[in-house]
Amino acid sequence: MAGVTRGRFITFEGGEGAGKSTQVRRLTARLRERGLDVVATREPGGSPGAEAIRDLVLKGEADRWSPTTETLLMYGARRDHIERTILPALERGAWVICDRFADSTRAYQGGAGGVDPAFISALETYLLADVRPDLTLVFDLPVEVGLARAEAFAASAGHAETRFESKGLAFHERLRAAFLAIAAAEPGRCAVIDAAGDIENVETQVWEAVSGRLQDRG
Amino acid sequence: MAGVTRGRFITFEGGEGAGKSTQVRRLTARLRERGLDVVATREPGGSPGAEAIRDLVLKGEADRWSPTTETLLMYGARRDHIERTILPALERGAWVICDRFADSTRAYQGGAGGVDPAFISALETYLLADVRPDLTLVFDLPVEVGLARAEAFAASAGHAETRFESKGLAFHERLRAAFLAIAAAEPGRCAVIDAAGDIENVETQVWEAVSGRLQDRG
Repeated sequence: MAGVTRGRFITFEGGEGAGKSTQVRRLTARLRERGLDVVATREPGGSPGAEAIRDLVLKGEADRWSPTTETLLMYGARRDHIERTILPALERGAWVICDRFADSTRAYQGGAGGVDPAFISALETYLLADVRPDLTLVFDLPVEVGLARAEAFAASAGHAETRFESKGLAFHERLRAAFLAIAAAEPGRCAVIDAAGDIENVETQVWEAVSGRLQDRG
Repeated sequence: MAGVTRGRFITFEGGEGAGKSTQVRRLTARLRERGLDVVATREPGGSPGAEAIRDLVLKGEADRWSPTTETLLMYGARRDHIERTILPALERGAWVICDRFADSTRAYQGGAGGVDPAFISALETYLLADVRPDLTLVFDLPVEVGLARAEAFAASAGHAETRFESKGLAFHERLRAAFLAIAAAEPGRCAVIDAAGDIENVETQVWEAVSGRLQDRG
């Protein structure tokens, strides 16, 4: 890949109801105001094929898929998304802001779901190539708060993507711990965002992390 | 798993139009006549989740998915099929006859599609566990004959699962070579069936392979 002209890759991670998608929109708008070419996208999804896989993974009963099968579907969607959306954008110099990426598989299927971390690492090695986030914002908040927010949102939007919300409190506690462990293990890449505050407060934290960590690299 | 009571696992492999599904039905009937509990199944598919993935993989344009993404979808379907259909059947002592299994990924996505064989081997190691075929019948016939048969079948059945048929002659020549290479590398597990003959001739070959290779193991 053309190293010097390549864009930046920023991922948003965290449990349910953390407000990531709102903040992806706000960060995208701020970066565009500065004249940057920004692609805002999400996982699972972000390309026509990956969105079709998303429907399979996020809808239906909690036990529709085992965590191992989920891992394969998530990586199928991710690989399509990388090939058709993320990599072409980075190679033309765009910034890519993505709501969830590889850390979600580590946390949901690995830490919370019990899939062998060595298997997930092998998938990363073979499938991500050099598409690794320059910065990852880990949205953290108490599990009860996040689930209540996610539930209110699902009810108001009438949406059906509730498979993971329905997995129970213990699952979501393991999930939160898994995300915090990723952030602690890779502090150079990850910044923890306190997502319990209001939208403006969280937006300020996001902007400080993005401008503070990425400006010195040009 | 309970080794002594476990059933047998027989897979049918080969390119398009080889007549595998007809022979799966005939072998299933013959084994049932002998009083055996037989589960006849297929890949991709064989469980409700895997059949949903099948729709994604087999329909649409030839370039809908890259070979790497296909590999992940095939293994997602395979893992679900193993967990929910194959392993429960083998563990209760049934014989499982499966139209396509892991060798199809080696041949279609690996040998013909160009996916790194080391990646496919890693998936086998992590995902197949000890679900390995006791016998694999590799149906072989000239590519032109197979494609003509598959095309006639698709036209008469009006079916839409033509993504792989549409990949062109060079792809199918690589595919045939890949299946023959698998059979040559694992002669203890694999028997090559000359699939160019008529249905009765092929049925005789299948029965000789099954009765000859499996009877001495009880």
